Amino acid sequence: MLEQLIAPDIKAAIKDGNIQDIVSYFSDVHPADAAEVLIGLDPDEALLVFQSLDEDLVTDIFCELPVDYQSDVAQLLSPAELAALVSDLSPDDRVDLLKSLPEARMAEVMQALEKSDRDDVNRLAAYPEGTAGSIMTTEFIALSGQLTVHQAMEHLRREAADKESVYNSYIIDRNRRPIGVVNLRDLILAEPTAKLKDIMDDQVATVNADDDTEESTYKLTRYALVDLPVLDAAGAMIGLVTHDDAMVALEREHTEDMERFMGIAGTHDDTTYLRTSVWVHFSHRVGWLVALTVLGLVSGLILQSFENVLNSLMLLAFYMPMLVATGGNTGSQSATMVVRALALKEIHSRDALRVIWKELRVALVLCLVLAALAFGRVMLFSGGTILPAGISIFEVAVAITLALAVQVVSATVIGALLPILAARLGADPALVASPALTTIVDITGLLIYFSIAKLVLGL
Amino acid sequence: MLEQLIAPDIKAAIKDGNIQDIVSYFSDVHPADAAEVLIGLDPDEALLVFQSLDEDLVTDIFCELPVDYQSDVAQLLSPAELAALVSDLSPDDRVDLLKSLPEARMAEVMQALEKSDRDDVNRLAAYPEGTAGSIMTTEFIALSGQLTVHQAMEHLRREAADKESVYNSYIIDRNRRPIGVVNLRDLILAEPTAKLKDIMDDQVATVNADDDTEESTYKLTRYALVDLPVLDAAGAMIGLVTHDDAMVALEREHTEDMERFMGIAGTHDDTTYLRTSVWVHFSHRVGWLVALTVLGLVSGLILQSFENVLNSLMLLAFYMPMLVATGGNTGSQSATMVVRALALKEIHSRDALRVIWKELRVALVLCLVLAALAFGRVMLFSGGTILPAGISIFEVAVAITLALAVQVVSATVIGALLPILAARLGADPALVASPALTTIVDITGLLIYFSIAKLVLGL
Repeated sequence: MLEQLIAPDIKAAIKDGNIQDIVSYFSDVHPADAAEVLIGLDPDEALLVFQSLDEDLVTDIFCELPVDYQSDVAQLLSPAELAALVSDLSPDDRVDLLKSLPEARMAEVMQALEKSDRDDVNRLAAYPEGTAGSIMTTEFIALSGQLTVHQAMEHLRREAADKESVYNSYIIDRNRRPIGVVNLRDLILAEPTAKLKDIMDDQVATVNADDDTEESTYKLTRYALVDLPVLDAAGAMIGLVTHDDAMVALEREHTEDMERFMGIAGTHDDTTYLRTSVWVHFSHRVGWLVALTVLGLVSGLILQSFENVLNSLMLLAFYMPMLVATGGNTGSQSATMVVRALALKEIHSRDALRVIWKELRVALVLCLVLAALAFGRVMLFSGGTILPAGISIFEVAVAITLALAVQVVSATVIGALLPILAARLGADPALVASPALTTIVDITGLLIYFSIAKLVLGL
Repeated sequence: MLEQLIAPDIKAAIKDGNIQDIVSYFSDVHPADAAEVLIGLDPDEALLVFQSLDEDLVTDIFCELPVDYQSDVAQLLSPAELAALVSDLSPDDRVDLLKSLPEARMAEVMQALEKSDRDDVNRLAAYPEGTAGSIMTTEFIALSGQLTVHQAMEHLRREAADKESVYNSYIIDRNRRPIGVVNLRDLILAEPTAKLKDIMDDQVATVNADDDTEESTYKLTRYALVDLPVLDAAGAMIGLVTHDDAMVALEREHTEDMERFMGIAGTHDDTTYLRTSVWVHFSHRVGWLVALTVLGLVSGLILQSFENVLNSLMLLAFYMPMLVATGGNTGSQSATMVVRALALKEIHSRDALRVIWKELRVALVLCLVLAALAFGRVMLFSGGTILPAGISIFEVAVAITLALAVQVVSATVIGALLPILAARLGADPALVASPALTTIVDITGLLIYFSIAKLVLGL
């Protein structure tokens, strides 16, 4: 929105060297809004803007930019400038940017960083995308339980300006394992002489650094937390997932879930729809489409094997699309319900039987309605068709209706079963994508349709 | 998980009247985990548990239960007990529970509430589901900018225990409009004698009470906020959307988006997958399925009108499912990409032309690959088919390939266009559901297929 309204004014101000206007505009808006405007500019224009603003503001705006745009701007900076900027970023943003740079450039910047920052980057960069470790910050407040509330407040006053998240102070033991948490509200309300170990809440929800980001968003939501400690393999606290990073991760997970559901590969950390190249869009989508086209061979072969049935009653071909589509729709619906229920942990893979039982009953009611509809349709619209000797339109309607009923029930159950199976095998249920399901249901649907028609009509 | 492991033990403890065990179990776990265990019990057993626990713990656990289970337990309480429980709940939870009760029961409880609570309920209940007003809390810290930091801290110490969210104190003017915000960290770091108006951040992101919940989750995420003020029509601050309520709302939105995408109606505030009755599941799904089956009539009629073409070249029927399915898959993929990009505000409805241009290019590359595949398939697998005089298998392959190419491009563009159109008309892009899209693409696909076959092969 803003981007298109303001970008031309900013471009003009840059061209005229009107630094006053630039500074006053960017100082007055939220860094996230400033970043949206910047994306509308070329990276070298963005650089000119940055050179007009003070360092803190540059950092605030820079970390709101998509990583690929950050990377474009970073390429234009001198190694020293870039190192200064990188060391101002929060630890997680720092790693994302460094990973996006060409290797030589990254090595240069790493050289220029202080050793502690460099170690930090190396440690964080080791966590693969999609893990809690990859989205955690390493800046958090860890205190001994022996401190008094007064001492803790003094400590916070010294540290607060530097830390990303200060709402919770974590109480750690000598092995840096979190044994309690005190939030800022408790500190304010408590007696200054009370010891932290006496006022702390000793139930601390945690995640492991290797856990999926979904685990951290789940716990943050379930326990209504502002942040969540991240532990290493030994149980020591090494970082914090904050609520805002978790919300961004949640949006990304959802995008990926929906895209996987449609057989679209790839991740969505770095860029936006319009900034993604045609080639990347293509490569994310083509895999499944090719696989499914090849699989579609099977439906062709099935049809070919029923050529005689089709030849003797062409009418069957007219109702084929309806039968296949209804199967695809009912199957996708039950798959969607089950994928979401699994994601929200409303059900687990061991609930398979209860889910199947529920879907079976839903399917039976659905198939009554849809079969009645199909029966009426055949009787009403195909009454005048010339049929082979010995076959009445009523018999044809019965065959088509019966096939539809079986198709609805089997598609619903398959749609519910596939995601649960995926979950039990430890795979992502959303990966049992809607097109894959549709293709399976297409094939079973054709088999059901022609087998029943053959049987009922004796073709 | 917990539910199935612990519920039998708890049931046994209830039967034996072993209150000690019950109290020690429920005092030791997080209220959210306690609630999950309770759902495994019958409401009257849950009541016995509640009667063993102290009032604060009961409130904490109760507000973590799904609303329909809360309602079941509430039915078992005396009006006085229920009123006491209701007045302990946070304002937003209170309204949700009251709305779920039978009308007579609700009136009873309302009578028993204090007037201020009653007014609060009436005000909150007026906001429809899905608006920021319906998920806000009315408890927040609002201060005058004239207060000093020391005075503000004193005020917080008095109020903090009662308020849901105390991390941010909002500075309001005489019309209760928020003009600034001071967070707890700033208060701790500031000079005690400084005035709030001098240390406050005067950029306050807000939402209107009538805005969609999506607007509040978007702003909370975009600006990385812990809470977000909600304004009435006059711009006065009347509540706060907190980050945890926003995360729950975000999960719900995701579920509804995915379900709408599959033509499943209904909302998901009150209950979980397994607790939803077969009848409700059925009624959420049947609408679209019936509509699509009726629409599917059209594909039948199209096929009927091309009966001659089909009769003279049965081979065409074998490739029909592949053609229709590929159109459905490519269309759903582009629709998914565009729906998510719209939801994340990466694109807006006025970007229609840029999106179409991008999708058109993606489609052209995709159709090259898929058409080559289809051509090879026809030549390889249908080479031996007996064809009508004057038609070669090469010509058939060209016709099928050309139809597939046109189908891929048109389906991709239609898939991208429909959600943008919906957004421009102010409708939910996810509503342009995947099955609706598939049905449209089924129909255009059949038209494309037989028209091109007729033209190329001269049938």
